[in-house]
Amino acid sequence: MTTDENLRHAEKMRKIKAARDRMMETKTEEKGLIMVHTGAGKGKSSSGFGMIMRCISHQMPCAVVQFIKGNWDTGEKTFLRERFADECRFFVSGEGFTWETQDRERDIAAAQNGWRIAKEQILDPEIQFVLLDEINIALRYDYIDIDEVVDFLLNEKPAMTHVCLTGRNAKPELIEAADLVTEMTLIKHPFRDGVKAQAGVEF
Amino acid sequence: MTTDENLRHAEKMRKIKAARDRMMETKTEEKGLIMVHTGAGKGKSSSGFGMIMRCISHQMPCAVVQFIKGNWDTGEKTFLRERFADECRFFVSGEGFTWETQDRERDIAAAQNGWRIAKEQILDPEIQFVLLDEINIALRYDYIDIDEVVDFLLNEKPAMTHVCLTGRNAKPELIEAADLVTEMTLIKHPFRDGVKAQAGVEF
Repeated sequence: MTTDENLRHAEKMRKIKAARDRMMETKTEEKGLIMVHTGAGKGKSSSGFGMIMRCISHQMPCAVVQFIKGNWDTGEKTFLRERFADECRFFVSGEGFTWETQDRERDIAAAQNGWRIAKEQILDPEIQFVLLDEINIALRYDYIDIDEVVDFLLNEKPAMTHVCLTGRNAKPELIEAADLVTEMTLIKHPFRDGVKAQAGVEF
Repeated sequence: MTTDENLRHAEKMRKIKAARDRMMETKTEEKGLIMVHTGAGKGKSSSGFGMIMRCISHQMPCAVVQFIKGNWDTGEKTFLRERFADECRFFVSGEGFTWETQDRERDIAAAQNGWRIAKEQILDPEIQFVLLDEINIALRYDYIDIDEVVDFLLNEKPAMTHVCLTGRNAKPELIEAADLVTEMTLIKHPFRDGVKAQAGVEF
């Protein structure tokens, strides 16, 4: 690049920085967020666990309630239970996907139990971030009442507590109530080509 | 629910489980994946770090190269450098977004240096998973040559090594080459309502 091009680049970048600084000046509010990760793509749970890593690093006490993957021996469960039991409370409510248990009554009881624990953790003034992993599956099958969940998040959640709810097919009521919603969209997935779920990537 | 309903439910779930088991039987291949997280939504980097957590738990040595957020004091950087330096190598190539440095030549040099480190880590037979965080930004501005990256990933990457590339605006060539692509789609974001970036959530 010539000197002229570099100067034009520096000027353009200066303008972008100024615009961004003006935009960010308006962003002064801190609040506990209701976050939803949904969609058919990969990354809903793993980005929740990425935020748990950030919370531990910032010494923000946090909690995880896993609603569905309960009987899986996941990397994140082992990691958090064995190494960060003081920093992150880890609860399991479910016993796996419902087609594995084949017992709807037991699934409902597990989901209800998970939601009871979730409320306790969210209300605990010490806890700053709660990950409700795969709760959307339990909500979708009406194992937990969506109206009760939305009402609790909007009216009883402490103002500064973050809650992240993951799972496909998030209910419209939850999306409406949330501050931040990301849809993980599946563009390509190796399962289609016969590749199985692998350690480090999927669990 | 009546007993009849419960029996019908159990039968339906049994069929789904059988279908799923048949489907999963075909998924026997293990291979190192090329994964891309792109899109304007949240969760691209954090789900990469969620996978790093899984790798550490499974005792799979891994590496991170951060291309853009270099001068940020992120939770994930502190966490991995202070607590998991043996399990996960952490490299920083960039000095922040380009509108902060305002020096294109320096940005290019930093990106090229990051890519050199990335290749070394990917080729290292000990390393099983490499996260190239925000590399798509460097590729988008042609600070790194997309053809070189795609050629390297397809022809020189060891067969069992996973590589995850994150950042908005992934180039079509990269999406074509990848095994797994997720687009994080922005449905709602609190920045729009004046909420600033917060610890634990954004960094």
